[in-house]
Amino acid sequence: MNDIFSDRISDVPRSFIREILKVTLDKSIISFAGGLPNRDLFPVEDLREATMHVFEHDAKDALQYSTTEGYLPLREYIAERYATRHNLKVDPSEVLITSGSQQGLDLLGKVCLNEGDDVIIEEPGYLGAIQTFSVYRSTFHPVPVMDEGVDVDILSDVLDSCNAKLFYTVPNFQNPSGITYSEENRIAVSRLLQDRQTLLIEDDPYGELRFMGSEKKSFRHFLPKNTVLLGSFSKIVVPSFRIGWIVAREEVMEKLVIAKQATDLHTNYFCQRIIHEYLRTHSIDDHIELIKSVYLKQRQAMVDAIKAHFPSDVHHTEPEGGMFLWVSLPVNVSSVNLFNRAIEEKVAFVPGNPFYVNRHETNTLRLSFSCVDEKTIEEGIERLAKVIREFV
Amino acid sequence: MNDIFSDRISDVPRSFIREILKVTLDKSIISFAGGLPNRDLFPVEDLREATMHVFEHDAKDALQYSTTEGYLPLREYIAERYATRHNLKVDPSEVLITSGSQQGLDLLGKVCLNEGDDVIIEEPGYLGAIQTFSVYRSTFHPVPVMDEGVDVDILSDVLDSCNAKLFYTVPNFQNPSGITYSEENRIAVSRLLQDRQTLLIEDDPYGELRFMGSEKKSFRHFLPKNTVLLGSFSKIVVPSFRIGWIVAREEVMEKLVIAKQATDLHTNYFCQRIIHEYLRTHSIDDHIELIKSVYLKQRQAMVDAIKAHFPSDVHHTEPEGGMFLWVSLPVNVSSVNLFNRAIEEKVAFVPGNPFYVNRHETNTLRLSFSCVDEKTIEEGIERLAKVIREFV
Repeated sequence: MNDIFSDRISDVPRSFIREILKVTLDKSIISFAGGLPNRDLFPVEDLREATMHVFEHDAKDALQYSTTEGYLPLREYIAERYATRHNLKVDPSEVLITSGSQQGLDLLGKVCLNEGDDVIIEEPGYLGAIQTFSVYRSTFHPVPVMDEGVDVDILSDVLDSCNAKLFYTVPNFQNPSGITYSEENRIAVSRLLQDRQTLLIEDDPYGELRFMGSEKKSFRHFLPKNTVLLGSFSKIVVPSFRIGWIVAREEVMEKLVIAKQATDLHTNYFCQRIIHEYLRTHSIDDHIELIKSVYLKQRQAMVDAIKAHFPSDVHHTEPEGGMFLWVSLPVNVSSVNLFNRAIEEKVAFVPGNPFYVNRHETNTLRLSFSCVDEKTIEEGIERLAKVIREFV
Repeated sequence: MNDIFSDRISDVPRSFIREILKVTLDKSIISFAGGLPNRDLFPVEDLREATMHVFEHDAKDALQYSTTEGYLPLREYIAERYATRHNLKVDPSEVLITSGSQQGLDLLGKVCLNEGDDVIIEEPGYLGAIQTFSVYRSTFHPVPVMDEGVDVDILSDVLDSCNAKLFYTVPNFQNPSGITYSEENRIAVSRLLQDRQTLLIEDDPYGELRFMGSEKKSFRHFLPKNTVLLGSFSKIVVPSFRIGWIVAREEVMEKLVIAKQATDLHTNYFCQRIIHEYLRTHSIDDHIELIKSVYLKQRQAMVDAIKAHFPSDVHHTEPEGGMFLWVSLPVNVSSVNLFNRAIEEKVAFVPGNPFYVNRHETNTLRLSFSCVDEKTIEEGIERLAKVIREFV
């Protein structure tokens, strides 16, 4: 009966993370494994007000089918925010509302990738991107990510050796590593891409969550035509609405709209209206400040606990924002073995494996600090340190 | 710069219907072109109550990320409704919540279709399905739909001549024709498919909107393993939530869940919660009765006006439910030419072309009666009759 399935789906494994998250449902486990924003920070009351307003003022329209591109005032808001926050000129016609930025990846795969096409991806990189582009049967070219950004020498070699259609990046507080590309690194990367057709996908779900250090310029400043921006309200407002967006130049947008229509007609319009009403009547900046103040404390607690308790030959990143931190153990330590021991000690994380293309053994792991309070972080890192010491 | 695009997207034209709908924005035009449910029938107040309940009782959960499969109590509700309404045994584990049933088509294309794979489609057929399967570059095998269902002799020949992975059907009040497969036709079709691997996709967005005649059995009664059911709340509650579902047997479901996760992680969870709360606390059956009573009157007005005013050599269907009616003009009349004249006379419809695979001239057209009141239907059909007379 397997004849019924396409080749593309036979190649994609069930998400490793899903399996891990099942293990961590045990309430006695301190989990640094999830990638969720902190639910205690959701602007529940403000969203309730915005929802009531939509029901009272324009319910019938908000409940009807709508346009594939998305609610124009929301697209205008997004374009305007790029101008005020990033000094980037984006026209609302360049903005397509998607069902989360994950769908942005799927649509880009759909409109760009033939089987076997070359895709450059960060290593470690976002596993959702690895999954999606795997479905389009792309040929992956991983390029290492280091503390200051992607390895430019390797990127240069890779670009020369293949015909990459897409280069997928999360340049701010990357998932999984937490690192941010420096401005020099962005400029160097942009120079390499300048005269090529490769589209650079700048996926930026965490960019607004900077606790420290200085804002870095978007790739769109350096590569205005070939940068595609992906954005999302999941980390700064709420995830369950699944409202994200793609910004792309006209000819790419035209194809994306066709693909979007054939995929799901349009994104949930009721929630587009709610989120627009929320943004129109509340200060998103104040709300982001609140999120940042909490995440910063938790990030600080985690970095401090790691410094206090982990063996000194364990490397870790020190993210300036976002939700994640990356740990590199001595090369001979398997993070999957560590995971199995850690669960016994009631502490969880995500082993690095799923963030690499085709790697089954790694010495790396991801820790999330978004959903755990400072005291619990201290306790969890102590537990983890104890287990690490058994392996090092 | 076209090198950046995939072959699959280069083949898909921009929707013809979108262009038509633009023309009909003119308020002086009586439009039978749209495919929208009637917004005056949306259960606004009941949904507002359900939304408030979700905010008051479980807001943080309803706003967080959720599972790829969808909200379990909603999947249980859907399974239970198949049991009570259709006497069909469906397990909640066989139900995946999708972003509208359009996404169900996309996911089925993704998990089943390699380039060139054979897909059987009704002629005329739902243009959203033609678009979606075109993106997967399937080879279409259209089989004519007649008043009692699909042409079984041609279906038999087609099945013998190719290796169809999918057979896409809308057996109740089909879009665009309004016809319903008789029970004999369903049994004959099922016999042909019995010992084959072909999946029969029963897309049933309108099935609950039966005004007259008797309920027909789902294909799942006759082909339990190889029938995939697509459903949607768009036509019986509201469309903007984009909540639909797929029912498929376990091994197909497993692939669909992987594809869904790589596509958009999960469907808008907030609206899954709202719709479940609405269904839990209100009578959907009473609401459906209300929709049916209005659509029946409008369907009656349209059929009556057609009989009174159209030339007798114009054939039309007499749907027992749904939103659409199909008109066949004498063979030498082009419905696109008719459309252009009709717009001048301030009446609009959808010419038949987009409902056929690769047909640029047709003598058929689709009329929707869902959104136009009886008096306006009478007026619009009179205008259309006048134009038709010029052509016949």
